[in-house]
Amino acid sequence: MPMHLIDALATTEPLSALFSDQSILQAMLMFEAALARAEARCNIIPQDAATAIVDAAQATGFDAATISKEAQLSATLGVPLVKALTERVRRKNPDAAGFVHWGATSQDVCDTALVLLLKKAEPILESDLLRLEVALHRLAEQHANTVMLGRTLLQAAGPVTFGLKAAGWLGAIHRGRKRLNNSFKETLIVQFGGATGTLAALGKDGVAVGQALARELGLTYPEAPWHTFRDRLATLLCACGVLTGSLAKMARDVSLLMQTEVGEAAERTDKSRGGSSAMPHKRNPVGCVSALAAANRIPALVSSFLSSMIQEQERAVGGWQAEWPIVAAVIQATGLDAAAMAEVAEGLSINDARMLANIEATRGAVFAERAMMLLAKKIGHAAAQKLVEDAVRKSLDQNRRLAEVLGAMPEAKQHLDPKVLRDLEVPEQYLGVADEFRKRLLNFTKEENSS
Amino acid sequence: MPMHLIDALATTEPLSALFSDQSILQAMLMFEAALARAEARCNIIPQDAATAIVDAAQATGFDAATISKEAQLSATLGVPLVKALTERVRRKNPDAAGFVHWGATSQDVCDTALVLLLKKAEPILESDLLRLEVALHRLAEQHANTVMLGRTLLQAAGPVTFGLKAAGWLGAIHRGRKRLNNSFKETLIVQFGGATGTLAALGKDGVAVGQALARELGLTYPEAPWHTFRDRLATLLCACGVLTGSLAKMARDVSLLMQTEVGEAAERTDKSRGGSSAMPHKRNPVGCVSALAAANRIPALVSSFLSSMIQEQERAVGGWQAEWPIVAAVIQATGLDAAAMAEVAEGLSINDARMLANIEATRGAVFAERAMMLLAKKIGHAAAQKLVEDAVRKSLDQNRRLAEVLGAMPEAKQHLDPKVLRDLEVPEQYLGVADEFRKRLLNFTKEENSS
Amino acid sequence: MPMHLIDALATTEPLSALFSDQSILQAMLMFEAALARAEARCNIIPQDAATAIVDAAQATGFDAATISKEAQLSATLGVPLVKALTERVRRKNPDAAGFVHWGATSQDVCDTALVLLLKKAEPILESDLLRLEVALHRLAEQHANTVMLGRTLLQAAGPVTFGLKAAGWLGAIHRGRKRLNNSFKETLIVQFGGATGTLAALGKDGVAVGQALARELGLTYPEAPWHTFRDRLATLLCACGVLTGSLAKMARDVSLLMQTEVGEAAERTDKSRGGSSAMPHKRNPVGCVSALAAANRIPALVSSFLSSMIQEQERAVGGWQAEWPIVAAVIQATGLDAAAMAEVAEGLSINDARMLANIEATRGAVFAERAMMLLAKKIGHAAAQKLVEDAVRKSLDQNRRLAEVLGAMPEAKQHLDPKVLRDLEVPEQYLGVADEFRKRLLNFTKEENSS
Amino acid sequence: MPMHLIDALATTEPLSALFSDQSILQAMLMFEAALARAEARCNIIPQDAATAIVDAAQATGFDAATISKEAQLSATLGVPLVKALTERVRRKNPDAAGFVHWGATSQDVCDTALVLLLKKAEPILESDLLRLEVALHRLAEQHANTVMLGRTLLQAAGPVTFGLKAAGWLGAIHRGRKRLNNSFKETLIVQFGGATGTLAALGKDGVAVGQALARELGLTYPEAPWHTFRDRLATLLCACGVLTGSLAKMARDVSLLMQTEVGEAAERTDKSRGGSSAMPHKRNPVGCVSALAAANRIPALVSSFLSSMIQEQERAVGGWQAEWPIVAAVIQATGLDAAAMAEVAEGLSINDARMLANIEATRGAVFAERAMMLLAKKIGHAAAQKLVEDAVRKSLDQNRRLAEVLGAMPEAKQHLDPKVLRDLEVPEQYLGVADEFRKRLLNFTKEENSS
Repeated sequence: MPMHLIDALATTEPLSALFSDQSILQAMLMFEAALARAEARCNIIPQDAATAIVDAAQATGFDAATISKEAQLSATLGVPLVKALTERVRRKNPDAAGFVHWGATSQDVCDTALVLLLKKAEPILESDLLRLEVALHRLAEQHANTVMLGRTLLQAAGPVTFGLKAAGWLGAIHRGRKRLNNSFKETLIVQFGGATGTLAALGKDGVAVGQALARELGLTYPEAPWHTFRDRLATLLCACGVLTGSLAKMARDVSLLMQTEVGEAAERTDKSRGGSSAMPHKRNPVGCVSALAAANRIPALVSSFLSSMIQEQERAVGGWQAEWPIVAAVIQATGLDAAAMAEVAEGLSINDARMLANIEATRGAVFAERAMMLLAKKIGHAAAQKLVEDAVRKSLDQNRRLAEVLGAMPEAKQHLDPKVLRDLEVPEQYLGVADEFRKRLLNFTKEENSS
Repeated sequence: MPMHLIDALATTEPLSALFSDQSILQAMLMFEAALARAEARCNIIPQDAATAIVDAAQATGFDAATISKEAQLSATLGVPLVKALTERVRRKNPDAAGFVHWGATSQDVCDTALVLLLKKAEPILESDLLRLEVALHRLAEQHANTVMLGRTLLQAAGPVTFGLKAAGWLGAIHRGRKRLNNSFKETLIVQFGGATGTLAALGKDGVAVGQALARELGLTYPEAPWHTFRDRLATLLCACGVLTGSLAKMARDVSLLMQTEVGEAAERTDKSRGGSSAMPHKRNPVGCVSALAAANRIPALVSSFLSSMIQEQERAVGGWQAEWPIVAAVIQATGLDAAAMAEVAEGLSINDARMLANIEATRGAVFAERAMMLLAKKIGHAAAQKLVEDAVRKSLDQNRRLAEVLGAMPEAKQHLDPKVLRDLEVPEQYLGVADEFRKRLLNFTKEENSS
Repeated sequence: MPMHLIDALATTEPLSALFSDQSILQAMLMFEAALARAEARCNIIPQDAATAIVDAAQATGFDAATISKEAQLSATLGVPLVKALTERVRRKNPDAAGFVHWGATSQDVCDTALVLLLKKAEPILESDLLRLEVALHRLAEQHANTVMLGRTLLQAAGPVTFGLKAAGWLGAIHRGRKRLNNSFKETLIVQFGGATGTLAALGKDGVAVGQALARELGLTYPEAPWHTFRDRLATLLCACGVLTGSLAKMARDVSLLMQTEVGEAAERTDKSRGGSSAMPHKRNPVGCVSALAAANRIPALVSSFLSSMIQEQERAVGGWQAEWPIVAAVIQATGLDAAAMAEVAEGLSINDARMLANIEATRGAVFAERAMMLLAKKIGHAAAQKLVEDAVRKSLDQNRRLAEVLGAMPEAKQHLDPKVLRDLEVPEQYLGVADEFRKRLLNFTKEENSS
Repeated sequence: MPMHLIDALATTEPLSALFSDQSILQAMLMFEAALARAEARCNIIPQDAATAIVDAAQATGFDAATISKEAQLSATLGVPLVKALTERVRRKNPDAAGFVHWGATSQDVCDTALVLLLKKAEPILESDLLRLEVALHRLAEQHANTVMLGRTLLQAAGPVTFGLKAAGWLGAIHRGRKRLNNSFKETLIVQFGGATGTLAALGKDGVAVGQALARELGLTYPEAPWHTFRDRLATLLCACGVLTGSLAKMARDVSLLMQTEVGEAAERTDKSRGGSSAMPHKRNPVGCVSALAAANRIPALVSSFLSSMIQEQERAVGGWQAEWPIVAAVIQATGLDAAAMAEVAEGLSINDARMLANIEATRGAVFAERAMMLLAKKIGHAAAQKLVEDAVRKSLDQNRRLAEVLGAMPEAKQHLDPKVLRDLEVPEQYLGVADEFRKRLLNFTKEENSS
């Protein structure tokens, strides 16, 4: 199933296929077939009828275009789908036709079909997220000691390690994946309530049929139908929103590190990927771009879904009917985001020489805080601050290293012994507990993953 | 071009076709062909080359699936499209191949293609909006004297006319259409800036070529390229957002009037449209549902686009690449909204007997304000208020008409003469300047339309 | 702490107080005091200095207006707050002044202060939500057998019970509260990372100090600082978004039931609440209005927060600084929503006579499905459907009850015995498993609450 | 009127004052006073009563806290405000008390008060926007010839001028301001419709009174009341959304140019503004941060307002009541955005030496397109492309300038004469029509401003 041009930067091939006409038809028909089987098993409809329905419920041969068009006449895909299935059953077995969709309502088939699509989406997303976590874990281990500038408000600040940065990305993405898992779990439930959510047409057998139906489909059976209670789906989309926020944070960081003037990281680039024929030196952050594009769209889609939750009484006027394109867009964008960042993480090259050079280029200014803390212990915070400010200004104006300037200032020199001054600008010595934080993050994700 | 199932309640057939692969390819190739023609005319590339490019730039035969897939490697459709076109030109005329896309950048072809699609969208939207305005104008005229309950906070209040209500809808939708027209006008401009927006590759001829290109495409030539300045597109989407807010307000109103317990209006319903086979009495507001579903999604899409406007330097990292699915979704949802409400307005039946009966059912309570104003002139506002409150309470408790209750209260009777009391609950006498407002609204929309 | 007029429909008194200047100052100062204590305990700063800092860190006497104004010069409240505190300490103990905020960064104090505010918000929200759950539980028990129309697309449909409806609201709100609890739990963590998140200024003691600080504040100590990892806060806001979606669904339902023409439910109304002096019969759904107004705003605020998660490197440029007004607005609106709906549920009166009358008024049409199912077993689904459609049409046209019409149609009469016909329109007999669903929902919420 | 801490990065002092309790009370009372005057002039109420009302309608002495609190009982500020005013009038002149708010409804006073606040907001926003335009115009003139790297996807690309960049910002902001002006114009209209929008209580005088009222307040009189037609306000908020998108684009650009590793621009920074005591070398982009923080919040607020437009019948249930905090937040954030960027533009320093150095540092790679175009004319596009790609690769690998490498490649050397090669990397020679675009943009904004 190819992606469409309009969605070329909004989906992936497997997820585009998942929301294709064929796949949607299949999911809807799977509900109808399972319902027939469940009702036959509960002696609600004849076994013959069930067999005829199951036989007819094959996606091939249904005309999606007609169903789409007719859906606008009833404001649901359920009506034309059931009509088409009934016709097809009738041609083979007129008696069975009356038992199609027995006791169910349009929303039962639509909602359950959506849930079945989500069930297929889960492993697709999970697989890319796990690839990404593995790659980040590897980066966080490999670069435990790779020092680089911290950057606050996009200004150079004291050093961090790339290992810690990667571990930070990993922590957030890992938490996001866990939340996604949990919300998939609560969402994968059958919808089956009949016209007004009481299954009145099935008399006292409603729950039994519903439970059989859930078993047929491998879904959980909820406390009650949820025609106008959309909190579980909403939670799933929120989990996508939070996760893609974390993915996009990583993408923003990587694209900033890839700037020509920074040059500390690069996505895998070759002629076919991220290269520019007009400007062959360019290493375009194409994975980050795709991920950020997807992430640009998701928050508002989540908000649409939350707004749509205000669904009237036993069936909504507009809220429910707005959901499908929103869910499809969020799942596809999330999948693209995950796949793109997995690709980025797996192919990321780190330029530790540039990292060091970028620290060097600040001429020690980013160690001003360090100097201040050292001096403050001797001469008090206020005096230390004044002294270091002067020194940094001189260092910038005269293009000399901070340590050198301080070494030439008597007030400073007398309190900082030569060794301390010599080491002042050694980034490895001013990392605090960066590595402890890195390890704590890795342990957290590892433990959770192995449990 | 059929609609897809996932979008069955999110688009219309013509707008679904507009954003199809074929239509997008065509728009992109139209740019490349027009560029070649313009550059030949300005003696930038050989006429032969232009002819070869124009010949090759036919949508049929391009493989949209491959282009979609390759787009993810460069984060733009422009690169693979130009590559495919170049290959095709090369097969016929190798010398001409080098002149494909001469001096342009990917964003030039993508943005201009999007503008060309919008140019085609405009008359589609306009036509349904005009249908809707005509139908509302007719309703506002026909129902100048059709009285009905006003409803505030969904509670019965003093009378209005359905003519005024329809004129109110018309006023807002008309203003919305005018704003949409204006924003289409400012959006239909060519994009042509080359790699960094200076058209450096064309030397001093950039503006001349750009103007020729705009003429070829029937678009306006802007002051400068707008690669990272998206305010015009944003304004167009905002206009869609405001317009669909007004359409949805009408849809909400109609769906409330159609409630079984209200029964004052109904969409055209027959077996194929809005009917329910399980519940043949139902007159489902299917047009309103589609319109509301579309309107549920648009505000957040608009907000996505506004967020995406923060585009970096000369080409964005994520913001630009997020736009296409947003624009396509907004235009399609707006078109659906307009088409659905045109359908609703054209087929709307009004039950003036139920309107009267619903006024009656309040037993005069909605004329309490009127009684109060009449009494206040005689006994002061505070006393009048107290009196009328008592009367309304009695009326509700005893299930008697307000006028009757007041007639039996000496304090009231002495100040309200029998004729006044008899007429107290005649809704036609308590309409204030409803008709003047109705006419002012109709005049406003008529004048503007004829100007 | 009074609410401001601009927020009169956007907050509650306790939550307005929570985000007042005084309360924010207090939370920020609580961080600084706790930090001083923790650092003294870890022998990082002198005990004397800690005492001086703790003494000075009292909210009274700080000038919020100046701090607000200066915050714009550094784009953070942290800088002017620390400056003001340092000044105050210096006046009493100049040596201690240098130890204020030792090793911390502005974001440490701001983020932890926000967390401390959220910690106070939790029981406020929880208490109203529990009130609401209790009231809904009671309604769901009391009205186990109160039949009413189901309504789909705002059209009358087969019967449900009000008990089931209330249980449905309860289920969704209960799930929402549980999710909120969970996300509060993961959010109530200390922020402490220093300038670049490595606590470099504290050498190897960073984690120890951080753990002591967390203990002082009654917060959890996370794996690592989360300056630019906002997923936990985002999850909390999402939980608010989902919960308020469910609250607003209930509010929409109640406001629809309160319509004059429906009249099945009413909020507690008296002269001071929900009454209208101009129209004393009105029973305005003021609680629902407040709740819906709040819910109208929350989804987009959530989306703002999700967008803001794309935070650059070690400190964001814009994303972080956008958070406070968003979080404050979401928490306050959620609190208002919960409080308003608790009020609504506690005071809700149910008019079961009107409920029955509204069923009656459909003249049996809502039992068409029932008739169809009964006939289908005898004459097949297609024939039954045709027959019932004819009967409903006649019933509507001739204003006769459906059962009566069917009894007069020979084709129907021969298959439906008189008792069945007599009972056809008894709503209590066409409730399917409504009560089983109701009980399942109540059990679910009860079990969870007692566990 | 001080800003509150929670809003310290979300408003400005004058706009904070505009939405203060005092200012809101004043606006509401201004409506009531003007209404009394207009009704006296039209002989609807006695002149005495009008005088008493006007006298009482002074903001001082009203208790905002009580009004806020009571507002939740009626879901509107109008009811308690009118009650309080009536009490106050009654104390002086009991007869006049009954004429307070005569014929009006709560929404009339609330909406008109909001419009009056917006009328005051307009010049505040306008003034900062004009300051910003003037500053950008100056930058665009001064830096007509200041060359710098173009940057696409954050990668170095061919040169542009800073003058063109500033002119681009100016163009978008200017268009945004014009749209804002237009939407203020259509929004500054009176609201006056009475209980259901017919002014029934005023008999046939409604329009006359409304027009007199509009004159009193200096507002336009619309075709009809617009209680549930919010398109004009929505358009105003959208204009804010589009404008702040453009402001934020500029802020993002400036903050990127200010990066330590880029160093091409800087906001005015001193100890009190944007400086960091811990890291005195930092030049924090505090103006950009405030602007971006504001812009992060606006799109979603706009979407909230658009969602809220779905207002029921003659008075909404939730939609209307959600508006005030949204409008206040958008106007304040827009004002902050404009003020912050005016400050940034006025104080922006440009480092043209760094701009040149950053071009230099690419060793000619950004002129690859230029070399390719030159060679393509001689040896065809495909051959030229291959040649230049090789050359760029060599240049990067061997750290030599592109021109030097090409000069050493026989295939290139024979087609590029020495002068061409010497000039290949002169940025001033590869600017295309940058200056023409710059001038066109400046002309456009100048003409419009002078017309």
